[in-house]
Amino acid sequence: MTRAAVLGAGSWGTTFAKVLADAGCEVMLHARRPELAKSIAEDGENREYLPGIRLPASVRATADAAEALLDADVVVLAVPSQSLRDNLTGWAPLLPADATLLSLMKGIELGTTKRMSEVICEVTGAGPDRVAVLSGPNLAREIAEEQPAATVIACTDTARAEALQAACHTPYFRPYTNPDVIGCELGGAVKNVIALACGIAEGLGFGDNTRASLITRGLAETARLGLVLGGELTTFAGLAGMGDLVATCSSPLSRNRTFGEKLGRGMTVAQVQESTRQTAEGVKSCRSVLDLARAHDVYVPLTEAVVRVCHEGEAPAQMVKEIMSREAKPE
Amino acid sequence: MTRAAVLGAGSWGTTFAKVLADAGCEVMLHARRPELAKSIAEDGENREYLPGIRLPASVRATADAAEALLDADVVVLAVPSQSLRDNLTGWAPLLPADATLLSLMKGIELGTTKRMSEVICEVTGAGPDRVAVLSGPNLAREIAEEQPAATVIACTDTARAEALQAACHTPYFRPYTNPDVIGCELGGAVKNVIALACGIAEGLGFGDNTRASLITRGLAETARLGLVLGGELTTFAGLAGMGDLVATCSSPLSRNRTFGEKLGRGMTVAQVQESTRQTAEGVKSCRSVLDLARAHDVYVPLTEAVVRVCHEGEAPAQMVKEIMSREAKPE
Repeated sequence: MTRAAVLGAGSWGTTFAKVLADAGCEVMLHARRPELAKSIAEDGENREYLPGIRLPASVRATADAAEALLDADVVVLAVPSQSLRDNLTGWAPLLPADATLLSLMKGIELGTTKRMSEVICEVTGAGPDRVAVLSGPNLAREIAEEQPAATVIACTDTARAEALQAACHTPYFRPYTNPDVIGCELGGAVKNVIALACGIAEGLGFGDNTRASLITRGLAETARLGLVLGGELTTFAGLAGMGDLVATCSSPLSRNRTFGEKLGRGMTVAQVQESTRQTAEGVKSCRSVLDLARAHDVYVPLTEAVVRVCHEGEAPAQMVKEIMSREAKPE
Repeated sequence: MTRAAVLGAGSWGTTFAKVLADAGCEVMLHARRPELAKSIAEDGENREYLPGIRLPASVRATADAAEALLDADVVVLAVPSQSLRDNLTGWAPLLPADATLLSLMKGIELGTTKRMSEVICEVTGAGPDRVAVLSGPNLAREIAEEQPAATVIACTDTARAEALQAACHTPYFRPYTNPDVIGCELGGAVKNVIALACGIAEGLGFGDNTRASLITRGLAETARLGLVLGGELTTFAGLAGMGDLVATCSSPLSRNRTFGEKLGRGMTVAQVQESTRQTAEGVKSCRSVLDLARAHDVYVPLTEAVVRVCHEGEAPAQMVKEIMSREAKPE
């Protein structure tokens, strides 16, 4: 039986712990705050981040990382992207030597512009073949409710990818393997930025034509950057690229889209941050995505626009106007 | 000043008549039924198909095709796909000799499996360079309300494409040119079928993860078929491919999606048809798209599934189950 440690008990980490347990794994779910771990253990439910979803008995919760990681075959990392390095530095000595490290995170590290899998290799010393990434149209709440969904598990080591596939395959959750780690991570990171842009447009009152145009241009931008970095075009056209982007940009369950919507309605970044407990990765990642694009000389006008709104005080209305009018040129 | 005749006074034809007028054209809008033409002329509004939208004074309505077509530089065809041949056969003798023929239609002719531009060439004797296609994320109602939207005008003759671009460019409507007529038409025809599938899933209670997966696989299916027929990959990744697909599959304004939703909720095709006045092109086109795919040996599992539900009595729940479980294989 596969033993899995899920580090991070937010809504996606908790949901994925349930998926693993439903697929037959023994799961330790680690929450940093002891009171959260305790309440999950006592209630069989994460009332804070995934209220109303009963967790299987084979999910055990703990605030003790050493206990969570003991004998784990798979270590699932599900913390906010920008806190990964700090968290992982503490956990690194506790990681079982050959455990597969699976990232659920979608972001690019500020300052270093590294992808999450790169940060994992750097901090833990693991080779890239030990690190995998999971990404797809996977709104946590829907999966927690056992609505059918598909996802992509990317790992350069096919055997590890297939072992992970088996470890989380349930009747409602279908994982597909893909060797393209770079493409999957890029798709995940940039989509949060595009979802912010879609939310902003929505908050300003624009409809489905505008959103579809933003999604289309956003995927083009993602693919341009991803190809330069070594990703594959088919990944961007697949579930971890287009699929994840479309789901995130369309759903009221998406934090980044919701965050953007509030910006579009006139709130400031600080005001929105105060009003919500959850992380909108795109607000931070937009700057690192832009840095990455500039370092590789790739044109990412949507990301630039989101950075201007989130960090440079540009008015959202101005942003959408510029974007829609810049969409000139022959296709 | 460009003189444009718009043949077909449904919601999209009427909206496009407004766009042309707002761009400075003199527009004749032709409705088959004299009472509809009369009411548009008297009210300055198409209360039946586009209620609440004031039409510019330079849009004139008539039920007399000869009057509509007199001295037209641009003839816009906006009738239901399956009635194009019959309608056009009557209009052909009235067409000005060098007028550009612009198709707003999205379908494949039943029986012949011809694209709309092919039917136009065949019936009128016009060369392919005189025929253009307009397609993109263009929900009629949003454009009628002057929400910003972009579109693609495809024509093998660049000069005609650019003349059309100028003829319908307004502050809220931005057309881009593209020489790929085949890709634009395929994208438009297949998206109606995929929108039916998305609606069916929605009617069954599935959420955004499922819809995003269907859209992703739907675009892959469209591109597979389109490439075999001679379309370009960049067209499918652009506004007339992905853009149009995402808008149609996401919007409550989409007829095909709404039609599918009713099927998913348990109504029969006949019942849905009775309950709505407007055409859901996909219900007819799914069969011709499937015929076209079979003739070229292209695998189109989503289209097959829609045909089974719409025309062979398969239960929608069965269809979604099959689709989500067939989504196996490595990506």
